[in-house]
Amino acid sequence: MSAAKFFEDYDRRQTQLLHEFFEFLRIPSISSEPEYRRDVLRCADWVENFLRDSGLAVERWEGEGYPVIFAERLLSPDYPTIMIYQHYDVQPVDPVSEWLSPPFEPTVRDGQVYCRGAQDNKGHCYASLAAVRALLQLQPDLPVNIKLLVEGEEESGSELLTRLLTQKQDKLRADAIAVPDVGVTSLKTPSITLGTRGMVSLTVHLHGSNTDLHSGMVGGIVYNPNRAIAEMLASLYNADGSVAVPGFYDSVENLSDEEVNRLSLEFDEERFKRVFEAEPTGGELAYPPLSRAWIRPTLEINGVGGGYTGSGFKTVIPAHAVAKISARLVPNQNPEAVALGIKNFLLSKTPPGIRAEIEIHPGHGEPLRTSANSSIAKIASQAISESCGGIPCGAILCGGSIPVISKLAKASGAETVFMGYGLDTDQIHAPNEHFGLDRLRLSFATIGRMIELFGK
Amino acid sequence: MSAAKFFEDYDRRQTQLLHEFFEFLRIPSISSEPEYRRDVLRCADWVENFLRDSGLAVERWEGEGYPVIFAERLLSPDYPTIMIYQHYDVQPVDPVSEWLSPPFEPTVRDGQVYCRGAQDNKGHCYASLAAVRALLQLQPDLPVNIKLLVEGEEESGSELLTRLLTQKQDKLRADAIAVPDVGVTSLKTPSITLGTRGMVSLTVHLHGSNTDLHSGMVGGIVYNPNRAIAEMLASLYNADGSVAVPGFYDSVENLSDEEVNRLSLEFDEERFKRVFEAEPTGGELAYPPLSRAWIRPTLEINGVGGGYTGSGFKTVIPAHAVAKISARLVPNQNPEAVALGIKNFLLSKTPPGIRAEIEIHPGHGEPLRTSANSSIAKIASQAISESCGGIPCGAILCGGSIPVISKLAKASGAETVFMGYGLDTDQIHAPNEHFGLDRLRLSFATIGRMIELFGK
Repeated sequence: MSAAKFFEDYDRRQTQLLHEFFEFLRIPSISSEPEYRRDVLRCADWVENFLRDSGLAVERWEGEGYPVIFAERLLSPDYPTIMIYQHYDVQPVDPVSEWLSPPFEPTVRDGQVYCRGAQDNKGHCYASLAAVRALLQLQPDLPVNIKLLVEGEEESGSELLTRLLTQKQDKLRADAIAVPDVGVTSLKTPSITLGTRGMVSLTVHLHGSNTDLHSGMVGGIVYNPNRAIAEMLASLYNADGSVAVPGFYDSVENLSDEEVNRLSLEFDEERFKRVFEAEPTGGELAYPPLSRAWIRPTLEINGVGGGYTGSGFKTVIPAHAVAKISARLVPNQNPEAVALGIKNFLLSKTPPGIRAEIEIHPGHGEPLRTSANSSIAKIASQAISESCGGIPCGAILCGGSIPVISKLAKASGAETVFMGYGLDTDQIHAPNEHFGLDRLRLSFATIGRMIELFGK
Repeated sequence: MSAAKFFEDYDRRQTQLLHEFFEFLRIPSISSEPEYRRDVLRCADWVENFLRDSGLAVERWEGEGYPVIFAERLLSPDYPTIMIYQHYDVQPVDPVSEWLSPPFEPTVRDGQVYCRGAQDNKGHCYASLAAVRALLQLQPDLPVNIKLLVEGEEESGSELLTRLLTQKQDKLRADAIAVPDVGVTSLKTPSITLGTRGMVSLTVHLHGSNTDLHSGMVGGIVYNPNRAIAEMLASLYNADGSVAVPGFYDSVENLSDEEVNRLSLEFDEERFKRVFEAEPTGGELAYPPLSRAWIRPTLEINGVGGGYTGSGFKTVIPAHAVAKISARLVPNQNPEAVALGIKNFLLSKTPPGIRAEIEIHPGHGEPLRTSANSSIAKIASQAISESCGGIPCGAILCGGSIPVISKLAKASGAETVFMGYGLDTDQIHAPNEHFGLDRLRLSFATIGRMIELFGK
């Protein structure tokens, strides 16, 4: 077989595959918003049924949170075992008004399917499920053990899977883990991803009074929580864009020149400006843009809110203000220590008359790095290169985080590689998320071919 | 007659009066939110009909915006003329979830009626309308000309009334204007109000990209609009709480010791802490609390927003961030110059890669001060003292703003006094606004008695 066989199989069954994919996309499986609970559970059912119908032995691991669907095809303990990690949950959809088509109605425009989750990660997830099914039909005797691990809380902290890692350690053993949940710089420069950053996140609640106050009557008397949150957030950064929290950079790994040179660090600034109408003026200005996003840790304010920002004007001093912040971490940083450092720094910056409650969210993740010389890295690179018409496969890092993966890799004892055909224009986590149908097909062939190569 | 006659009249007709008042309160006349347009117009009709039924000559002044209802009873050009200013519009009701009863369903608990507008200013407005009606019935020949000016845009800039001031100047001429739209420190220390602060307001829009971005993928590359808004807002203040905008304090009036001593500047800090669970730690710390709110100008952040602050977490770098800010002004400050100073200062603080759009809202107002020796100040003080059982009537200032009043005072050529029975616990502009039924009755008697005294 070859990647071409998988492309042929995809093209023959395209109508059925797209029907299934759109059915999967239509389920609004937003794991972080409790009002979608029934939908997330329905999505778990969908994945479970798909895998059972594919002929795999399926287990539904339940507990507080959303089910983990685990499926396996074990032929022999002598064969190598590959595990594919996926998630079936998606991000929230606010602001809904900015979507050009309904966020959960897959809509194809110019070869791209627009839907929340189209890329992150139902596109890659569906391609994985369908590729395994195809492989089992095409080569039922391929000497490889296959495991699929599909969780429903990746976008909200992976708490259940994290709790299950010890209990299910035997089930999770594998020689390699593939994580098709990331992207490439462009389809002309395909790559595997040798690591992700870790993440910690916090919510900062400020309280100034027991009710909203009138900005005329008491303007100048109380400490406005909006002023406090602005000052506290501003204090997080130095003028050069570095993070001002003491100790934030203490344990940051220094990569060798060889390790840096292996990475495709060229940043296409003109393209970035054109596509996002944005400039690379943030973060640590002492480093080039992609080093800032891949090799260095960062701190971002994901949300800030207080008072009235609707149409018109409201002369209010709000009782409360809130901020949500997150740090992305690189190897050797300790997530707990970083989170605590941020919390204590902000507490020390809280002005008099303001009460701060700072919550460190559970489910943070450690950063992960994989060697370019591991067998799964080499096999994945070969499958990608074959699927992309023979273009050599490079290596990049991902600035994003899949917090549970580093823990999973430890529990499993497996070498772990990230891959995927996401593009930075896919608007994941934003309105109008989309994924190319060509890239769905490419994902299908790459994942199928990778498993096939692993079994040879 | 006396204040007592008005109390008797009120008590005799209480059922009818409360029925009418609640009917008035139920109309959700939010002038700053376009979706309430029909309701605001319905509220104008209600006022118009009430005044016509009271026997006044009523005019409806229309134009872009909401109608001004003007009513008069002219007996003779030789009689003195008093004009009462009111507004029938109210503030928005967000956050609705914090209301204990529906915001537009008047609900009486412990003698207080809870409803948006119950105090600000439908309570005072209804008391004014009903007091004039009672006076016309009780003393039809009282030698006084009475004018009522009831606008519908006080909470959103008073644009139409401002535009009409020149055109309607003849109609607006009066010897005195009373503005029952403010409050007292407590019912045990009744007072008139000798001035309000002026106000300017601005909206700051920041744009960083054409779409929300992923805080992992580009975290550390772009300048996060949330970071920019925090830094820009924080730069507005010095460490001592003073405003850092150059020139902000340049023209601020210095009151004489005599003028300061006439004011009731005692601040009950323990009560403030108990009632609002807040501390007087904001503003210019070099001045005592009530001086900061009455005599000094202030700058407050009324709203700030960017990114995701809902339940759960969203790993986003928002495309935009927004802030709404307002300054309260004291005599001799020029509102246009102050607003422009703030705008230019914020523009100068806008970081690279961020585009700022700063809108100065129309409808700002100049501060107003009235002499304690004016005849309307003396007559209003007498009416207040009589209505409050003979307690001497003091003098305070109001930190709030009624932007159109200083312009109206100029156009009318009238001495202008503020009055009212609002308390700082009434939660105006906030959830659970309320007004005491005892204070509605007190307002009715005070306003009736004031007009009566003016005609003697």
